[in-house]
Amino acid sequence: MNHVPEPAKERLLYLLRLLEKNRDEGSGLVTSAMVEELTGWHRDTIRKDISWLGNGGEAAGTPGGYNPQFLIPAIRKALGLDRVRRFCVVGLGRLGSAYLDRPFAPGPGGMEEFELAAGFDTNVNRVEILKSSVPLYPAYKMGEVISRFGIEMALLCVPAAAARDAAGKLAAAGIRGIINFAPAALALPPDIAVRNVYLADELRALAVKLFPSGC
Amino acid sequence: MNHVPEPAKERLLYLLRLLEKNRDEGSGLVTSAMVEELTGWHRDTIRKDISWLGNGGEAAGTPGGYNPQFLIPAIRKALGLDRVRRFCVVGLGRLGSAYLDRPFAPGPGGMEEFELAAGFDTNVNRVEILKSSVPLYPAYKMGEVISRFGIEMALLCVPAAAARDAAGKLAAAGIRGIINFAPAALALPPDIAVRNVYLADELRALAVKLFPSGC
Repeated sequence: MNHVPEPAKERLLYLLRLLEKNRDEGSGLVTSAMVEELTGWHRDTIRKDISWLGNGGEAAGTPGGYNPQFLIPAIRKALGLDRVRRFCVVGLGRLGSAYLDRPFAPGPGGMEEFELAAGFDTNVNRVEILKSSVPLYPAYKMGEVISRFGIEMALLCVPAAAARDAAGKLAAAGIRGIINFAPAALALPPDIAVRNVYLADELRALAVKLFPSGC
Repeated sequence: MNHVPEPAKERLLYLLRLLEKNRDEGSGLVTSAMVEELTGWHRDTIRKDISWLGNGGEAAGTPGGYNPQFLIPAIRKALGLDRVRRFCVVGLGRLGSAYLDRPFAPGPGGMEEFELAAGFDTNVNRVEILKSSVPLYPAYKMGEVISRFGIEMALLCVPAAAARDAAGKLAAAGIRGIINFAPAALALPPDIAVRNVYLADELRALAVKLFPSGC
């Protein structure tokens, strides 16, 4: 299989969510025209994206549209979402500890793709006192635990002032990607992927849904 | 100004973030070809979206591309993001209280568009004990406070079992949109906008960045 370009990956991920939602709502085939209508991507672009999937994508196409039953696993495979990946939470204050025991909102795809394997905090007292079904460790054990459990991703939930230092330690420990909830820009080697989560983006996306413009 | 269709709104919002990021990084004009390259939307679609902005969009266009200095405020105006909107946090457990005093990660657009105006919890003790620069109230005062402060949006941070009930109370109190962090589907009248925030979606988007497919 060829290397899928970044913009195609993003569109395929969006398409995956759409297909899963459709499936959960019991709808049938999905056509590239439907996707164009919903997203504004040209149907030729969508067809090209699906062609990256190789045989799995082709098998999903019928004259009436794509069959989610085949297209969903084909996209998951092409995007590397077809096996469980482990992640950890770093910083067990209010935000970080909130992620420890909440049953995750699974989303249309479910949470079977990810497993929370560890929590870390520099405060050893906190690590000992917090009750959690997830094993918790003092931050100095990051390297050992991340390597032992094969943890690939981290939710960074430390205060802004501690974010760069914690991210640097995660990088040294071999982490491959970080979801950054801290209001601070990270400086990391280019081979470590970062997603900054901004509350303002969520609020904006909601505000836009709420308020018809021109009013 | 005409009513902007939903898919065009979503694309304009994405374009807004792109323009703000470009501006912050000191880059210059943005062309529809650049946007097509980054997003896969056909350049004619992008031009059509910008035409919804009316004069503000046209004024931003030059032979060399769109000028972010004009296009950014035109998009903000068309999407209703040109005034401060108030929001509240409902449920002051670990997750909800984490939002109370954190300096928000501003995102490329800054947080000047939103103001956290109140926090609510059914537990009166918690409301009294928590220290916060944001005023906190027992949940039974929701209707009064939301109306008095003109609060339009809510972050719903209650446990799953309490989510539907709390959302119903917010609806009765006149809230217009909810960001749902609870792992539960809400049942609300169609005029109330809901955004479900799924950790799985964030993890997926990171995983896709991390792992080149075909490896």
